Amino acid sequence: MYRSHNCGELRASNVNETVTLSGWVQKLRDKGFIVWVDLRDRYGITQLVFDEERTSKEIMEQAQNLGREFVIQVTGTVIERASKNPNIPTGAIEILVSELTILNEALLPPFTIEDKTDGGEELRMKYRYLDIRRNPVKNSLIFRHKVSQEVRKYLSDEGFIEVETPYLIKSTPEGARDFVVPSRMNEGQFYALPQSPQTFKQLLMVGGMDKYFQIVKCFRDEDLRADRQPEFTQIDCEMAFVEQEDILNVFEGLTRHLLKEVNGVEVEEFPRMLYDDAIRLYGNDKPDIRFGMQFGELNAVAQHKDFNVFNSAELVVGIAVPGGNAFTRKEIDQLIDWVKRPQIGAMGMVYCRCNEDGTFKSSVDKFYDETDLAKWAEITGAQAGDLICVLSGDTNKVRTQLSALRMELAERLGLRKPNEFAPLWVLDFPLLEWDEETNRYHAMHHPFTSPKPGQIELLKTDPGAVKANAYDLVLNGNEIGGGSIRIHDKKTQSLMFDYLGFTPEQAKAQFGFLMDAFQYGAPPHGGLAFGLDRLVAILGGQETIRDFIAFPKNNAGRDVMIDAPAPIDDEQLQELNLKLNLKS
Amino acid sequence: MYRSHNCGELRASNVNETVTLSGWVQKLRDKGFIVWVDLRDRYGITQLVFDEERTSKEIMEQAQNLGREFVIQVTGTVIERASKNPNIPTGAIEILVSELTILNEALLPPFTIEDKTDGGEELRMKYRYLDIRRNPVKNSLIFRHKVSQEVRKYLSDEGFIEVETPYLIKSTPEGARDFVVPSRMNEGQFYALPQSPQTFKQLLMVGGMDKYFQIVKCFRDEDLRADRQPEFTQIDCEMAFVEQEDILNVFEGLTRHLLKEVNGVEVEEFPRMLYDDAIRLYGNDKPDIRFGMQFGELNAVAQHKDFNVFNSAELVVGIAVPGGNAFTRKEIDQLIDWVKRPQIGAMGMVYCRCNEDGTFKSSVDKFYDETDLAKWAEITGAQAGDLICVLSGDTNKVRTQLSALRMELAERLGLRKPNEFAPLWVLDFPLLEWDEETNRYHAMHHPFTSPKPGQIELLKTDPGAVKANAYDLVLNGNEIGGGSIRIHDKKTQSLMFDYLGFTPEQAKAQFGFLMDAFQYGAPPHGGLAFGLDRLVAILGGQETIRDFIAFPKNNAGRDVMIDAPAPIDDEQLQELNLKLNLKS
Repeated sequence: MYRSHNCGELRASNVNETVTLSGWVQKLRDKGFIVWVDLRDRYGITQLVFDEERTSKEIMEQAQNLGREFVIQVTGTVIERASKNPNIPTGAIEILVSELTILNEALLPPFTIEDKTDGGEELRMKYRYLDIRRNPVKNSLIFRHKVSQEVRKYLSDEGFIEVETPYLIKSTPEGARDFVVPSRMNEGQFYALPQSPQTFKQLLMVGGMDKYFQIVKCFRDEDLRADRQPEFTQIDCEMAFVEQEDILNVFEGLTRHLLKEVNGVEVEEFPRMLYDDAIRLYGNDKPDIRFGMQFGELNAVAQHKDFNVFNSAELVVGIAVPGGNAFTRKEIDQLIDWVKRPQIGAMGMVYCRCNEDGTFKSSVDKFYDETDLAKWAEITGAQAGDLICVLSGDTNKVRTQLSALRMELAERLGLRKPNEFAPLWVLDFPLLEWDEETNRYHAMHHPFTSPKPGQIELLKTDPGAVKANAYDLVLNGNEIGGGSIRIHDKKTQSLMFDYLGFTPEQAKAQFGFLMDAFQYGAPPHGGLAFGLDRLVAILGGQETIRDFIAFPKNNAGRDVMIDAPAPIDDEQLQELNLKLNLKS
Repeated sequence: MYRSHNCGELRASNVNETVTLSGWVQKLRDKGFIVWVDLRDRYGITQLVFDEERTSKEIMEQAQNLGREFVIQVTGTVIERASKNPNIPTGAIEILVSELTILNEALLPPFTIEDKTDGGEELRMKYRYLDIRRNPVKNSLIFRHKVSQEVRKYLSDEGFIEVETPYLIKSTPEGARDFVVPSRMNEGQFYALPQSPQTFKQLLMVGGMDKYFQIVKCFRDEDLRADRQPEFTQIDCEMAFVEQEDILNVFEGLTRHLLKEVNGVEVEEFPRMLYDDAIRLYGNDKPDIRFGMQFGELNAVAQHKDFNVFNSAELVVGIAVPGGNAFTRKEIDQLIDWVKRPQIGAMGMVYCRCNEDGTFKSSVDKFYDETDLAKWAEITGAQAGDLICVLSGDTNKVRTQLSALRMELAERLGLRKPNEFAPLWVLDFPLLEWDEETNRYHAMHHPFTSPKPGQIELLKTDPGAVKANAYDLVLNGNEIGGGSIRIHDKKTQSLMFDYLGFTPEQAKAQFGFLMDAFQYGAPPHGGLAFGLDRLVAILGGQETIRDFIAFPKNNAGRDVMIDAPAPIDDEQLQELNLKLNLKS
């Protein structure tokens, strides 16, 4: 038996007990005549003490030669500490050690195993097993476990069945790139790893499973942006005999349950916003509504004056920055430089100070008088003491730019509080979105999303205007989930593939099984998927997902710890009926 | 809203309520003036009634034109049934339908959606979404969900943390064949899908996670035997600061919990058996101990007579078949033919009838008298009325043969009762096993298994005799789990790789990260993995796993429903820097 207790559980009530502990040497203080060791395990830290008077010479020497991260086992007596440490739960006691065994020695770790480590990102990833010893990473993984368990509990209690769908499936060129897996037994053929279990969950609905969920790994071979992983985890759900309202209610319930159980936060009914309104009011389909700064469209009051920049713009739009009149001229110039950076791409920014006395002072006073500016203030909701920031240009671009500025300002003003939670449903997404690259419409969610009732005819005349039974759940400015009511009849699904540019042969080859299934009694159904990595990070009060993933990959899709991917043997390639076809 | 209730919940207490139900048409009985429809969903069946007097003509006609598996929605009044059906929970009531909507039509299904279907295996797999509508499959999937939930609950309550380990890892030639995944972003390099998260869970122990579990998909590109799947699910566990005894206790607790919660069965402390004893007494490292028929070794009493077959054999070994004296001569001849089939490969079988009067009658009476045969009976534990079956030959082969015969007889005699549960720990597995093909020793579990203390020296002189800290959990003759105490120091691990024929370079290239990790303070650790597919099947009282997997693959590794694997586009191949290298 390696331990009678863990390093987090001994209290004053255990004094005089003989205990055995095992763990890592966190810290060693050697005063010569007395040695203290902080012994650490997952559960906490317990102080060990060795002293000249009460500890044998041999053990004393052994203790003095311990190094950081040595793995040791000690037996000793729990004694009351002379100077207690109120910051740790075991701070009332220490262990007077009578036996010490070194279970394993340790080289000096390449970075400190402390909450604030001196290790850089790359070093931490290479030695991720050491990084995981650090509280912030360890606690993030434990937190993730807790969230997953609560999700499973809630959905199971609601009658959902977790069904494991296959990982070795079929590649479909629609959507993002698949990872493929060559089949040795089926020459020249490949499996693909699922980008999501979408078709399988729909087949489970056809199969009468009624309520399905799964916490499941999904795979996308995309060029990785920061904070994207080639493998990621979804909470995947589907329900039969439901309308959008049923789904929103269930998953609002789930999210509220998580906020309560995991964060101890009670949240009101989630507000709902139409996609079009989100774009108009926040320039963004995942608005952070923890703070205001809604867009005010100023065309009516700012155009038809002598200011050509505005006159020639498709959209003139502003936000009122609370307390922004306190910005110095230099700070405002910095903001203007910020929006002009290539990543944002604005041509410039007009601003208007709202003075405490009710007067206005703008950067375009030549063109606008107090009455004009008062209208800007009214439309953007600016109060005395605020700063109105105005951008102009092509509608889509300027909205994106102003949205970025709004988030940047919120960040600077401390309005994005990590322990405040503002969920929001965004409804009625467009069915299709135009793709500049391929010069055609693509499904915005996926080709199984149903158009709003009565809108299918519009597909022929104005495809971009067709709205879908599709919804996203947004939390603090992040999309944490999205879904839709699906098409459940073969005719509509065929029509949809047709509009998306599939030939009937392509549709049949890729999704024939699904359209076949729709002929054998498919119920109306719909669902949604949450991105677990991001959900956990946000509930954990953070925006980067990497510390909530035990062994993440870097931006080149590499696991630098195990050094994967890696070349494979020629023999393996031959067995798989493959040859390398290297470009370099 | 598609329904106010599901098809399994209405009772006599609901009479006179107006309800809305949705589901599938299970059965339709049309008497002309009255039509009954069984409406089915996941939760049950509710009878609908339409009649000339109380139903509108239009709806009556609609009802008469419904087909099997049509998806419909009805609104109506709950009424008491004239003739109640005590076999279903809703049997006291029926719904007098006032509104009927056909939600989706259905083609005639290719097989009947009944508990006993007329569909063959292949058809059922092609239309798996219809097969899942059948109770036996649907209930198996729900049962699996329940088992998984209970596993998670138990282990979480015991302080285990579920950590997701990566699916895109590195190929290692040791062990079974990997499925590989070409990396587009890393030219000429491949990921591999994990055969198990073995090294990652060990790194989590090095990382101080202390108690880890995961229900996780694993992958093996093996030539598939019946009832093997290329992707399968493991309950994977690891613990730090433990000895074998700690692990056995935790997972005995888990198994007992499952038997109790899922099967309502209370099981005593699990018996334990040494691997060597299992082989000697049952010819098998996963003995089914629901019944007796332990092997009796007869060399001492059956050799050195004039029967050359036995004299020349390495091992003469028999079992007592309870009540087997009742077998006719013809039945015994059939048994002899059975053991001589090439799949079993025995040269013949000697038998001895144990008559009710205490006398014996054997097939080798020429060589053995009553006194000799009485010794056979004593050694095999045969009682009056039994039949002693004796095989002889090379020790390993004859044990395997007699083990097969024992299982076959138990099957025929009805001794393998699916609702009886006999768990067993098998301990002290050999560390290595000889591989005829490669003419060298391989790790029996995997190269991370630690040898028994003090036995590492034996590796040099008698490698086959070295025992490991390795254990299997056997349930009803199936290995449902296995594990070991791991090596946790670099020196022993290097030595092990050396004995297994790795060059230091190979060991470093494949497992360098693990050996590095062992230098930074690795705690003693060990663990185990359960095969979830089989565990669920056995708890469900079955031995084939396929109905407990939603979308299984066939013996060629194909998903015949979605038709995968399949060829991929040339463009995809090019992006992956690959060319096909077909043999045919």
